[in-house]
Amino acid sequence: MNALKEYAARVEKALKAKVEGMEGVPPLLQEAMAYSLMAGGKRLRPVMLLAAVDMLGGDSGDAMDPACAVEMIHTSSLIHDDLPGMDDDVLRRGRPTNHVVYGEGQAILAGDGLLNWAGEILARDALAHPGQLENRVRAMEEILRGAGPQGMMGGQCLDLSCQQENRGGEKELMEIQLGKTCRMFIHPLRAAGWLAGAGEAEREALGRYGEAFGRMFQTADDLLDVEGSQAELGKSVGKDAQEGKLTAVAVYGLEGARKMVRDQMELALAALEEFGQQGAFFRELVLSMKGRKS
Amino acid sequence: MNALKEYAARVEKALKAKVEGMEGVPPLLQEAMAYSLMAGGKRLRPVMLLAAVDMLGGDSGDAMDPACAVEMIHTSSLIHDDLPGMDDDVLRRGRPTNHVVYGEGQAILAGDGLLNWAGEILARDALAHPGQLENRVRAMEEILRGAGPQGMMGGQCLDLSCQQENRGGEKELMEIQLGKTCRMFIHPLRAAGWLAGAGEAEREALGRYGEAFGRMFQTADDLLDVEGSQAELGKSVGKDAQEGKLTAVAVYGLEGARKMVRDQMELALAALEEFGQQGAFFRELVLSMKGRKS
Repeated sequence: MNALKEYAARVEKALKAKVEGMEGVPPLLQEAMAYSLMAGGKRLRPVMLLAAVDMLGGDSGDAMDPACAVEMIHTSSLIHDDLPGMDDDVLRRGRPTNHVVYGEGQAILAGDGLLNWAGEILARDALAHPGQLENRVRAMEEILRGAGPQGMMGGQCLDLSCQQENRGGEKELMEIQLGKTCRMFIHPLRAAGWLAGAGEAEREALGRYGEAFGRMFQTADDLLDVEGSQAELGKSVGKDAQEGKLTAVAVYGLEGARKMVRDQMELALAALEEFGQQGAFFRELVLSMKGRKS
Repeated sequence: MNALKEYAARVEKALKAKVEGMEGVPPLLQEAMAYSLMAGGKRLRPVMLLAAVDMLGGDSGDAMDPACAVEMIHTSSLIHDDLPGMDDDVLRRGRPTNHVVYGEGQAILAGDGLLNWAGEILARDALAHPGQLENRVRAMEEILRGAGPQGMMGGQCLDLSCQQENRGGEKELMEIQLGKTCRMFIHPLRAAGWLAGAGEAEREALGRYGEAFGRMFQTADDLLDVEGSQAELGKSVGKDAQEGKLTAVAVYGLEGARKMVRDQMELALAALEEFGQQGAFFRELVLSMKGRKS
């Protein structure tokens, strides 16, 4: 998808400018934050926020700061997730994880720093738009709610405790997917609605799309973990399964998980009906996820 | 100081209501966040925010949410500071630290959760005051800036790296005090200025007071660590010194640190001249710090 790549390139450039413009931050902290923030990736969450603003007739060029904030929060969660006390991962996207390079203490601070910086950027973005102040603050509230204890962090808590206690079934899987994965699609998309001055019906449809997209995305990832392992390593289970993670494959089996991807794909496409022709980007995005590579 | 106790009791009650009103949060995360947030303490930072609002003729009853957010950020930093990758402390205020009770992973999430929740509360507080929206967002920006990479988190980074590399002198001590301790006095006090609709001269004076108060507070703490150890345990060095922390006593010696407390006390009192008679609470607070018990 070219549009996806174009949005991602704009996000990349904006993040780079943010990192380079950091002032008054100890060089070590700045470096540790930048190490993970600039480690590449599809920038899916900020890209979707920008594309949603454009779809709704807003100006995505003027939504770059909230988009950057979303990516900072996402990166913060990855740094903390990789720590020895959580997933204990030493590699991410082929590079050593943050704590492997900077030590656990500095990695904790790098994650805290990115999360806090996101809030600062959202507050400053709101102040820089006095004519849209209320809508900008509503966008901020959406994004932070999606990240917080009721959202992503709640999902991380449940994921970790199910893994540590080796428990959980369909109910827990559904809650973990919703919290850990979907919330950071749902709420940045709803935030795009506020930024573009859209109405509640549009925000609701974006939220439905975000949930279905997140479940599809996570389940496809669970499948890829297993299928990738089978294809590339000759193993019968993937890394997540070995670590006792509660995945869609663990709960539904391979066929069940594939069906879930298809079902959520349908739900995501149905949610886009609200937007008619304007929904082309998000329709393509769903279809491109078929057989995606992580 | 009775006024201090009265403010603290109001903060305590408001925090309790916040914790009990949490909805949609996994019970384990809610419990871990509440465990540290409700562990007592003087609530000095939110108390000072409220007292500053009153001093400036504002309504401290209407500043309780920002005050609670400040305490949540402070608690978040304590949970993360206590982790094995940072200070590795097993006790705080006589109780097991968060990770000792809930495990490292959940403690990381409890700290993240409190930091994020603070941002959510600040955003909702702003939206709940449409007539003061801009000033409320400015207060939020102050508080988050004080907490972030340019503020408290920057100070934590420098503190940790000096400790790990056994380096640093007066310059580093000054920066660590400013970042790690003073910023979470300076910016919540300046935020109080925004909340009360005060002017820049008053915010500046509050900031000067916050810096001097923070240096005095931290240096008195460093002294207490050593003197307490001498008095109670017959040891010649305190816990911080044993851990190789860069403290005022390590840099200036006992007499030099005592002089620093006196000098900063004078600076704090001088900053209060801006407020004349209205500064009584903050004047008393400085004087009460003489010979304080931690």
